[in-house]
Amino acid sequence: MTGATGVQDGECVTLELLKQKMADFTKERNWERFHSPRNLLLALVGEVGELSEIFQWKGEVPKGLPEWEEEEKVHLGEELSDVLLYLVRLSDVCGVDLGKAALRKIELNAIKYPKPSSE
Amino acid sequence: MTGATGVQDGECVTLELLKQKMADFTKERNWERFHSPRNLLLALVGEVGELSEIFQWKGEVPKGLPEWEEEEKVHLGEELSDVLLYLVRLSDVCGVDLGKAALRKIELNAIKYPKPSSE
Amino acid sequence: MTGATGVQDGECVTLELLKQKMADFTKERNWERFHSPRNLLLALVGEVGELSEIFQWKGEVPKGLPEWEEEEKVHLGEELSDVLLYLVRLSDVCGVDLGKAALRKIELNAIKYPKPSSE
Amino acid sequence: MTGATGVQDGECVTLELLKQKMADFTKERNWERFHSPRNLLLALVGEVGELSEIFQWKGEVPKGLPEWEEEEKVHLGEELSDVLLYLVRLSDVCGVDLGKAALRKIELNAIKYPKPSSE
Repeated sequence: MTGATGVQDGECVTLELLKQKMADFTKERNWERFHSPRNLLLALVGEVGELSEIFQWKGEVPKGLPEWEEEEKVHLGEELSDVLLYLVRLSDVCGVDLGKAALRKIELNAIKYPKPSSE
Repeated sequence: MTGATGVQDGECVTLELLKQKMADFTKERNWERFHSPRNLLLALVGEVGELSEIFQWKGEVPKGLPEWEEEEKVHLGEELSDVLLYLVRLSDVCGVDLGKAALRKIELNAIKYPKPSSE
Repeated sequence: MTGATGVQDGECVTLELLKQKMADFTKERNWERFHSPRNLLLALVGEVGELSEIFQWKGEVPKGLPEWEEEEKVHLGEELSDVLLYLVRLSDVCGVDLGKAALRKIELNAIKYPKPSSE
Repeated sequence: MTGATGVQDGECVTLELLKQKMADFTKERNWERFHSPRNLLLALVGEVGELSEIFQWKGEVPKGLPEWEEEEKVHLGEELSDVLLYLVRLSDVCGVDLGKAALRKIELNAIKYPKPSSE
């Protein structure tokens, strides 16, 4: 069963959907005047700071975060999301198709760092 | 017509697709041992730094970046992508479903900042 | 007249003094075990995020911040200080003489970017 | 014996001295028009990114960086310095006395986190 958003889980979440949702959210609140590229960039830096604060006193943590409380993982998901949402919004106001750019970047990375030959 | 990636443009790029591509890319190069949460977080901070460098001496820039050279916009797309790809990878190694978390965060934001009534 | 710190104003504040004060502060609270290089680096990133938040929705602001409330300027001074104090502490635990390194870097910059000739 | 800067080592380097050197450096190159608060803030974020890149693939590193090559430590000193110099310059153009603010912040921190009683 799907929720009010029509999305059951995260599998089919496109960058395009998030871009549209952020654009609507901004317009509905008349916040477009605040969303200049550099304002959004600094907001993104602010969220990266909050993300870093979650990890700052922990020393190295293993993959999967096995010892974290559920509450802390939820908080982590929120901060990761905040970074993503400002990144999507920044890309939009800059006229960058982020999904397309990301696929292209992966291809460039594959050229820069070729797969080791599998002998 | 679709390209070699099977993706014509960015419209249908899901976070799930990027997650899978990053996981494959990492595995093929035997880089999994480097991708601890804090290593990826610091790599993300590094990319945010490169993104900031693009904007650092420009003063305020208008939406759509009308006066930017095409080459500069391509570079911008690459840096935005680098931030995204490390964010997707960091979420994956932390066990966070980023698409789901982002939709949830938008809903939380809508509760925190209600739409103004439209009288 | 000098205050309890023996320092009347900021003119004679050395990096060495701040380093010593931070080392004492840490030791007195038994926090040395938390102050690994990467923990301090992430704490610094967190503070840079808080600094960015102060500027994020303002658009361009002129030098001297003429329209800022006194309270906001005090807050700004605190966030600038937080970045500085973690930077000083990080340098210390890495064994870097920050004052010496900074003077050397200014000299390197002067070689990289020579003064324009004054005809 | 002192060098050309009149400074033998880093012990007596004040924030005031660095502020003055940065102001002179900027003026001599006619760069004052670039040094708006937000330009400098983004430049600082860029340098924090470069600092993070030094640590990004290393996993946890012990205090004193015992296994680092001398060259890598010199590079680290340069990146720490770049962050410091932009921080000093940003404080200056914002009209903040950074040394004074830092001493005050340490005092505030001591109130917020009192020393444990030493019974």
